[in-house]
Amino acid sequence: MTAPLKSIEGTGDLAGTSLNAVMAEIGRRARMAARVLALSPAEQKNKALASMAANIRAQKARILAANAEDIAEAKAHGMTDALLDRLKLDDAKIESVAAGIETVAALKDPVGAVTESWTRPNGMTIERVRVPLGVIGIIYESRPNVTADAGALCLKSGNAAILRGGSDSTHSSRAIHAALEQGLREAGLPDAAIQLIPTRDRAAVGAMLTGLDGNIDVIVPRGGKSLVARVQDEARVPVFAHLEGVVHVYVDKAAELAMAKTIVLNAKMRRTGVCGAAETLLVDRAASATHLKPLIEMLLEAGCEIRGDKAVQAIDARVKPASEDDWRTEYLDAIITAGLVDGVDAAIAHIERYGSHHTDAIVTSDAIAAEKFLSQVDSAIVLHNASTQFADGGEFGFGAEIGIATGRLHARGPVGVDQLTTFKYRIRGNGQTRP
Amino acid sequence: MTAPLKSIEGTGDLAGTSLNAVMAEIGRRARMAARVLALSPAEQKNKALASMAANIRAQKARILAANAEDIAEAKAHGMTDALLDRLKLDDAKIESVAAGIETVAALKDPVGAVTESWTRPNGMTIERVRVPLGVIGIIYESRPNVTADAGALCLKSGNAAILRGGSDSTHSSRAIHAALEQGLREAGLPDAAIQLIPTRDRAAVGAMLTGLDGNIDVIVPRGGKSLVARVQDEARVPVFAHLEGVVHVYVDKAAELAMAKTIVLNAKMRRTGVCGAAETLLVDRAASATHLKPLIEMLLEAGCEIRGDKAVQAIDARVKPASEDDWRTEYLDAIITAGLVDGVDAAIAHIERYGSHHTDAIVTSDAIAAEKFLSQVDSAIVLHNASTQFADGGEFGFGAEIGIATGRLHARGPVGVDQLTTFKYRIRGNGQTRP
Repeated sequence: MTAPLKSIEGTGDLAGTSLNAVMAEIGRRARMAARVLALSPAEQKNKALASMAANIRAQKARILAANAEDIAEAKAHGMTDALLDRLKLDDAKIESVAAGIETVAALKDPVGAVTESWTRPNGMTIERVRVPLGVIGIIYESRPNVTADAGALCLKSGNAAILRGGSDSTHSSRAIHAALEQGLREAGLPDAAIQLIPTRDRAAVGAMLTGLDGNIDVIVPRGGKSLVARVQDEARVPVFAHLEGVVHVYVDKAAELAMAKTIVLNAKMRRTGVCGAAETLLVDRAASATHLKPLIEMLLEAGCEIRGDKAVQAIDARVKPASEDDWRTEYLDAIITAGLVDGVDAAIAHIERYGSHHTDAIVTSDAIAAEKFLSQVDSAIVLHNASTQFADGGEFGFGAEIGIATGRLHARGPVGVDQLTTFKYRIRGNGQTRP
Repeated sequence: MTAPLKSIEGTGDLAGTSLNAVMAEIGRRARMAARVLALSPAEQKNKALASMAANIRAQKARILAANAEDIAEAKAHGMTDALLDRLKLDDAKIESVAAGIETVAALKDPVGAVTESWTRPNGMTIERVRVPLGVIGIIYESRPNVTADAGALCLKSGNAAILRGGSDSTHSSRAIHAALEQGLREAGLPDAAIQLIPTRDRAAVGAMLTGLDGNIDVIVPRGGKSLVARVQDEARVPVFAHLEGVVHVYVDKAAELAMAKTIVLNAKMRRTGVCGAAETLLVDRAASATHLKPLIEMLLEAGCEIRGDKAVQAIDARVKPASEDDWRTEYLDAIITAGLVDGVDAAIAHIERYGSHHTDAIVTSDAIAAEKFLSQVDSAIVLHNASTQFADGGEFGFGAEIGIATGRLHARGPVGVDQLTTFKYRIRGNGQTRP
């Protein structure tokens, strides 16, 4: 079925085949697979997912060997330790990939769910029912586990997936993909339900961004700023983009200090590299005498670098001055920008000016200030008295996510299986005509 | 506030002002207005809508005079009667514009509606709440009433609107827009909530399609194929496009003949120029002896031209042969393509091959065939035993629509006020942090 593509697996180049022809064929096969998947019952998709997880476990040695090849190549190219850490698989990571697929299998099938229904005065019933989006293109960087995570989420939601992994993780992604393909076959689903682009040629990304003759319905970029920016710039199809999370925590004068400390520490320091990690701390000027010093000292003690305004600098000599750019920066590191604002209105104005509409939180016991913040801050996720690190599909109860969308259309916030569907209207009548 | 723009109203050119500067300023003002509208209570928006309707009625003479100018210019340019008819306003049309605004005012305000809410095991509550999309750009052709319809729908849903009307209807649109602006002012809302592009320069459309520096969130084209195609080709922002409605009615062997006749006649002939009008009739081969002839004769008698396959041609000498292109054609006229198919599976395959994923219907008394059709036909609207002419926001109970979207993302089918919103997540806790 896939002879021309299979034959070049492992070589990393297209052996003379035209890239455009290969990509066009991938698009056509994906569209055909999407038509089959849209009508596949939940049990069949779940059977495929269970087989995939089993195959991942059974082929652990093969996947680790492939990963060792990637690691060796990456070291030879001088990859940094942080990136090597993302790339490296081990027993625990492979188990977590397999378990992740099983989590997706256990989710409720979104396809066919009736989200609204009503009856018209003429007796017609109208239902709004979830259907798959179609074909989803996923472009990602060095984490090879995305191959399985994204493939499983797309399958569960009845979509065909075209995966383009980072060239650093080529061997690992192929080994994982082989386990997924085997799972599809074991459940009687088309191989082309989850395809992996069989070349490192960067022009393949450009081809995906054109939409492959209408055969890609949406692109999901997962990676750093420059990847997402390129995708947003060049894509001729809709994109579920995850841009920056310049995440704020505002501590109001009516905040309980103990709660504020717990939330700020968790929001910033639990994990600093996630998009829900706080990057800016705003403290109500009316609480500067009571709340500012304990919060700043706590963060310094926890090993967080602080870049502050004048008032924050006055607290401790270790505080560095904040530049204008710092207020707009997603550090993804143990660094925070901190300053005073004049109450909730000024906090909202600051967040609207400097934020990225991702996730922002207020800590306060004042219900009116809280409601104002929740309604006026125009971010995908707004929280009252809870840590911003809850910005995660799993923490929302979505089971798994393909990313967190910062765009406004279709998907916003965590993108789980429901957000990977669209809908249609099903109307049932008994002979109604329009007057 | 709008001095540089006002000064050129009525002249139709920008009197030396750079188009890009004017467009950028329109974008900035729209964004500022959108921030105000997002927080405006339902009563204030409804007050503005009521004032707009009253102003449209009070300024009828002015609007008709402006329309007479457009008509005179259009006649001088040799516009066809059909287009002149779309352009022309009269007392009844102006009353219907005003009444349309009142219909929108009476709709439920979508902003702030909680569409889902749940509690997490850690006690946090999560709400999914509707919020406006932001700034909506609408590009339309000769019907001046779209100025009011689209402006009212955007306002109701808390969005700022940037309207670019057809150059043929410039005077009429400006007169209507003046009435809308006055309504906004009377309710204390910013003028810039509904802006009309003050130039006929076609480069203004190009500027809108770039998104005006991120100040347009979505573009809605309303007009013919070439307009929609240009917008889809060039837009750098999401588009709610209404492409063709190549609408099918499939008459199954298990259809009651009387019901089939009523539905087919209504679907094709009630109004031939609407996107929900049937363009192709498919009849089950197993019903060719019983159903085909009565259906074809009925359509011929009603004045419908028929382009048929061999079997349909054999019915009546007036039937013309259908070309391959005819099966893909949206006639928007009293013409239909007709042919036999081998049962519901072949009907579905035909529709997936030739259709436009807009609206398709099955007539049958066989519940299994009906469910198969409803689940397998991948169109925005699928109907069982009802006319395709119900493909309309008003008929869905949405009150009013800005168009019917044929894309798959965000909006699909009739786009009413709910579809002009997005959502955010509001999370309320009492100190929760993530382990």
